[in-house]
Amino acid sequence: MKALVYDGPGQIEYRDHPDPGLKDDGDILLRVTHTTICGTDSHILKGGVPTVKPGTVLGHEATGVVEEVGRSVRNVRPGDRVIASCVSACGYCRFCTVGMYGQCLNGGWALGNTIDGVQAEYARIPFAQNSVHRIPDDLTDEQVLFLSDILATGYEVGVLRGEVRPGDTVVIVGAGPVGLSTVVTAKLFSPRNIVVVERSASRRETALKFGATHAVDESQAAATVAELTDGLGADVTIEAVGYPDAFELTASLVRSGGHIANIGVHEGPATLHLETLWAKQITLTTGIPSGLTIPQLLNSIATGALDATPMISHRLKLDEIMSGYDTFTRSAETGALKVVLTN
Amino acid sequence: MKALVYDGPGQIEYRDHPDPGLKDDGDILLRVTHTTICGTDSHILKGGVPTVKPGTVLGHEATGVVEEVGRSVRNVRPGDRVIASCVSACGYCRFCTVGMYGQCLNGGWALGNTIDGVQAEYARIPFAQNSVHRIPDDLTDEQVLFLSDILATGYEVGVLRGEVRPGDTVVIVGAGPVGLSTVVTAKLFSPRNIVVVERSASRRETALKFGATHAVDESQAAATVAELTDGLGADVTIEAVGYPDAFELTASLVRSGGHIANIGVHEGPATLHLETLWAKQITLTTGIPSGLTIPQLLNSIATGALDATPMISHRLKLDEIMSGYDTFTRSAETGALKVVLTN
Amino acid sequence: MKALVYDGPGQIEYRDHPDPGLKDDGDILLRVTHTTICGTDSHILKGGVPTVKPGTVLGHEATGVVEEVGRSVRNVRPGDRVIASCVSACGYCRFCTVGMYGQCLNGGWALGNTIDGVQAEYARIPFAQNSVHRIPDDLTDEQVLFLSDILATGYEVGVLRGEVRPGDTVVIVGAGPVGLSTVVTAKLFSPRNIVVVERSASRRETALKFGATHAVDESQAAATVAELTDGLGADVTIEAVGYPDAFELTASLVRSGGHIANIGVHEGPATLHLETLWAKQITLTTGIPSGLTIPQLLNSIATGALDATPMISHRLKLDEIMSGYDTFTRSAETGALKVVLTN
Amino acid sequence: MKALVYDGPGQIEYRDHPDPGLKDDGDILLRVTHTTICGTDSHILKGGVPTVKPGTVLGHEATGVVEEVGRSVRNVRPGDRVIASCVSACGYCRFCTVGMYGQCLNGGWALGNTIDGVQAEYARIPFAQNSVHRIPDDLTDEQVLFLSDILATGYEVGVLRGEVRPGDTVVIVGAGPVGLSTVVTAKLFSPRNIVVVERSASRRETALKFGATHAVDESQAAATVAELTDGLGADVTIEAVGYPDAFELTASLVRSGGHIANIGVHEGPATLHLETLWAKQITLTTGIPSGLTIPQLLNSIATGALDATPMISHRLKLDEIMSGYDTFTRSAETGALKVVLTN
Repeated sequence: MKALVYDGPGQIEYRDHPDPGLKDDGDILLRVTHTTICGTDSHILKGGVPTVKPGTVLGHEATGVVEEVGRSVRNVRPGDRVIASCVSACGYCRFCTVGMYGQCLNGGWALGNTIDGVQAEYARIPFAQNSVHRIPDDLTDEQVLFLSDILATGYEVGVLRGEVRPGDTVVIVGAGPVGLSTVVTAKLFSPRNIVVVERSASRRETALKFGATHAVDESQAAATVAELTDGLGADVTIEAVGYPDAFELTASLVRSGGHIANIGVHEGPATLHLETLWAKQITLTTGIPSGLTIPQLLNSIATGALDATPMISHRLKLDEIMSGYDTFTRSAETGALKVVLTN
Repeated sequence: MKALVYDGPGQIEYRDHPDPGLKDDGDILLRVTHTTICGTDSHILKGGVPTVKPGTVLGHEATGVVEEVGRSVRNVRPGDRVIASCVSACGYCRFCTVGMYGQCLNGGWALGNTIDGVQAEYARIPFAQNSVHRIPDDLTDEQVLFLSDILATGYEVGVLRGEVRPGDTVVIVGAGPVGLSTVVTAKLFSPRNIVVVERSASRRETALKFGATHAVDESQAAATVAELTDGLGADVTIEAVGYPDAFELTASLVRSGGHIANIGVHEGPATLHLETLWAKQITLTTGIPSGLTIPQLLNSIATGALDATPMISHRLKLDEIMSGYDTFTRSAETGALKVVLTN
Repeated sequence: MKALVYDGPGQIEYRDHPDPGLKDDGDILLRVTHTTICGTDSHILKGGVPTVKPGTVLGHEATGVVEEVGRSVRNVRPGDRVIASCVSACGYCRFCTVGMYGQCLNGGWALGNTIDGVQAEYARIPFAQNSVHRIPDDLTDEQVLFLSDILATGYEVGVLRGEVRPGDTVVIVGAGPVGLSTVVTAKLFSPRNIVVVERSASRRETALKFGATHAVDESQAAATVAELTDGLGADVTIEAVGYPDAFELTASLVRSGGHIANIGVHEGPATLHLETLWAKQITLTTGIPSGLTIPQLLNSIATGALDATPMISHRLKLDEIMSGYDTFTRSAETGALKVVLTN
Repeated sequence: MKALVYDGPGQIEYRDHPDPGLKDDGDILLRVTHTTICGTDSHILKGGVPTVKPGTVLGHEATGVVEEVGRSVRNVRPGDRVIASCVSACGYCRFCTVGMYGQCLNGGWALGNTIDGVQAEYARIPFAQNSVHRIPDDLTDEQVLFLSDILATGYEVGVLRGEVRPGDTVVIVGAGPVGLSTVVTAKLFSPRNIVVVERSASRRETALKFGATHAVDESQAAATVAELTDGLGADVTIEAVGYPDAFELTASLVRSGGHIANIGVHEGPATLHLETLWAKQITLTTGIPSGLTIPQLLNSIATGALDATPMISHRLKLDEIMSGYDTFTRSAETGALKVVLTN
């Protein structure tokens, strides 16, 4: 089959790669029909994720059709149209049994990381029973594709861990795909204000289209939040960037008793201003999605309450994926948000 | 009356001070019978708490007898024996109505800070209805005295915000009075291991007497926790010191999905290792006690499940308080934990 | 002044009544500008609420202008436009301090029950600090009036205690004003389905206008819920009627692991089918609102996410209140939902 | 092999029965070393559980040694000493993924019910990965045996769903094995009072030995609770009997805002006094254990905080099980609590 293979920092190629097959009774073989390029893939490409070895097929967001199932798989059958979660969960370790699939001791984020991923014609998905979900007949692949990763991430790690509530003022720092996923899923809880903080003017505009009530750059963030909250600070502030200064800004905008939810993938430490935060009774959370909210989010997509398809900026064929990477990594020029590849 | 007055960094004196009186209908006048010296007082003495102005009576832990009540006070009457919480709560602001008395917009930690405190023969206690609690007849003042601050702090900010559960491995960094208060209140939830990390050998011994199952210095902390948890890390780690390196150590000992509870009062920022923590699904909390758990802790004291009286290392008369400060600030030599002053 | 006075079962009169004045330092005197007739008032009129003594002014939903404040009241001033909660909360008893204002040991539901209420030109509101809320300048009295009782009740006792979540299937039995309040506040959490069960065809139509996705009579309830939930039952079922058979129906429609929230005021016991429910892992809740969510709901009204004004079926002058009662009690003919009286 | 077989109401026999073998890749074959007789078995024997068909081996509490594992089982190996949970959980259905193993759509309570159980020399345990737990080397089988069912039931369905907290007054109605399991696990949360209500004088004495602070019969229950709680009622009341009158009593003893946790297996409906409970803001829960707390409870057993071995009233060989049933069903005379059978 053909697949996008990582050959070390800065090097990827779309080429022939050995066909995957079932290795374990819990595996399924997926014929990929839709996949995406994620910010994490750019990160890998720069050599920033050392667990990814040269020779690995990248990609961890996909929908597809089940080709073959391992003999212990009961939740799906060949022919089923499914979403593959970016996280593969064994379902029985101490973390999976409390719903922390991202911390799975036997799986976790493996696809396109420690095992071959889904930017390929076919992919082996391990631990399928706790990691793939059937797509309802009335929903298209594009409608549900981002549940694999970014929608689940924005919702679980940002909105739920941040405990967004009706009437809240929510700050989201960063309006890339994960930040926007946080915007659209935060709306399910009817907050009063969603303030997006973002350097790029075009992304600020995009954020407003997706439902942000305010979109400002860093220099205006503190004043905007103060004005909206009588100077108290935001109920929930969410970091969706992954840089130390963005984290510091995020933490500075929260009110006493509020929540700071970190989504961003960080490569280094950040400064935590405990000299003020020690007394502010804040709750700061981090995390990786479990995908356990996918059934709930499918319901929200079905009603129209959640629609992330406008995030698709580019649609290409899978064999155009090299061009897709080029478009995605030059997003400032191309305006790329999500590049979707069909097979 | 006589009171311990702060005259600026390094300067305190026990001397005549104007008698307090009721200023607001919600005040009570307390005849102090027992008070203490707290680590925060040492902190103030060094000039580390700029909100404390010269001329202020220090002290925020006390029991006493109600002398007089403001005309809107309904919960106590003259003659009642009461505990005064270190936090004065208006009871109606947006924070008080959700139980965050430490964040009260009209009160908060005022005693011995922004208003005269309780290291005095008499003290005015504002917002008495939400800030003082009657002492049951069958309990002595010494049994309940530390509910004013350190027991409530260890319990609410450490144990409850850290979500200690039966069977847990809990790490407490620091075995001063607040750390020990955390040890004794953590036991109410029957954790499996309470590992105290502390530099002073004598305090490590004390911690074991108070119920810690292990007491080690920093160099042994990681190995001890790893051994007890199959290398996963502790369920809950609690910082009860207030220094950046102690915070870093505390944060490094937690397992994936665990809780980090900061109790320590910090004067500067700390480093947060988001390069590992971003993915570990941790919850980090800070806070100030509300005193709302005082009725519950009174129950635990009544049954004998909670006994902090062995923390009293020195008993003095109130007019010996200058000597008490000396003993307390030289704790390394004197072995002082809590110095209790009676009037 | 003029007021609507209860003279015993079946007897009310709009007549002269002594002017109220401040009795306690925590009271305010309210010049009522808007009040309503509530289902509970009908209930009182039938003699069904024995705590209401003849000679009492009825009414517990009002907005108005503060005329005078007791000397310990700090949260509002004369001239402020305010909502008076139906519940008067002392703010310091064991229930108020944990946010259960409806269980207040010193107040609770007093207005129009154990003390004179708000169907009058003026009313004394006790415990004002924890019981009245300023109305933002950009909101009209009609927009916020129902926060006094029915919106807070539907939201707190139905939606929050029932733990409605995005994507859920929610059943609400009864489409009177409280049931409709539950419909409109449930939408803040973006459930997938809101199934209203109601005998009256016209109320079923109304429910659909307010956002119910399905409206059926009792005979169709089980089949409708089964079809929407693959036979599992609803995530949350809410009783908003107050009759034993309605409660049984509500409890029968829940899925394993689901929530049953009772809002209805019951005069007698109901049958609990423990022979099936014991194993279904259900959570059943009851309650009285605290009004603590009023600030949050004000935010939702401000954004337009919540609008209950279409529930106003009749607008009358306060001196037409006898006619208002007539209209309200003959709601089957008049189509009355909420009768609003202005002064 | 030999096994205790149910032959219809009133009829059981210990006799030859076909050896079990693996049927599914997720099964294990257990050589039973310890099993028990449970109150549910008496219930079955009377014909009260129609899902149990004649010809079924009874029993759902066991420890043993793994003889053979299905090819997809990863958590245990042949030779491992294990506890088998009474609930078999698939680990991937909508209930298992939220930790409600008792509601599993593919398993649930099957052992000794819909499939052959563990009162036998050997047993097939389905869904082993989510249903069996290794026993730590330093614990004996007797120490952990009751984790299979009654300890997990008392803890999860009584203590955790009832939200017992330090300092609470807890009422437990019924002092059979499940009631006593609730007593000993409630102590992990250090409640102030544990009031057991029980008709049998000898069981009341037993309850006091296990840690109840008070043990009374029904006639004294209300007065005892009122005296301990200033007339407010208990924080948590737990039904561990399964009869309508016991449920009514349990529900009547709770305070406003308190929790009623039903553990009892009911054969018919009970009366719910909504005429008082509607306003009391109570939370009523039911459930079946998941066994997910077994690792936590193993920790508590290891520290000595939890010891249920004194509940073993009789120790017999497995081939004496017919005599064991006789002893158990005549518990009023024999004083039987738990009859343990070793193989």
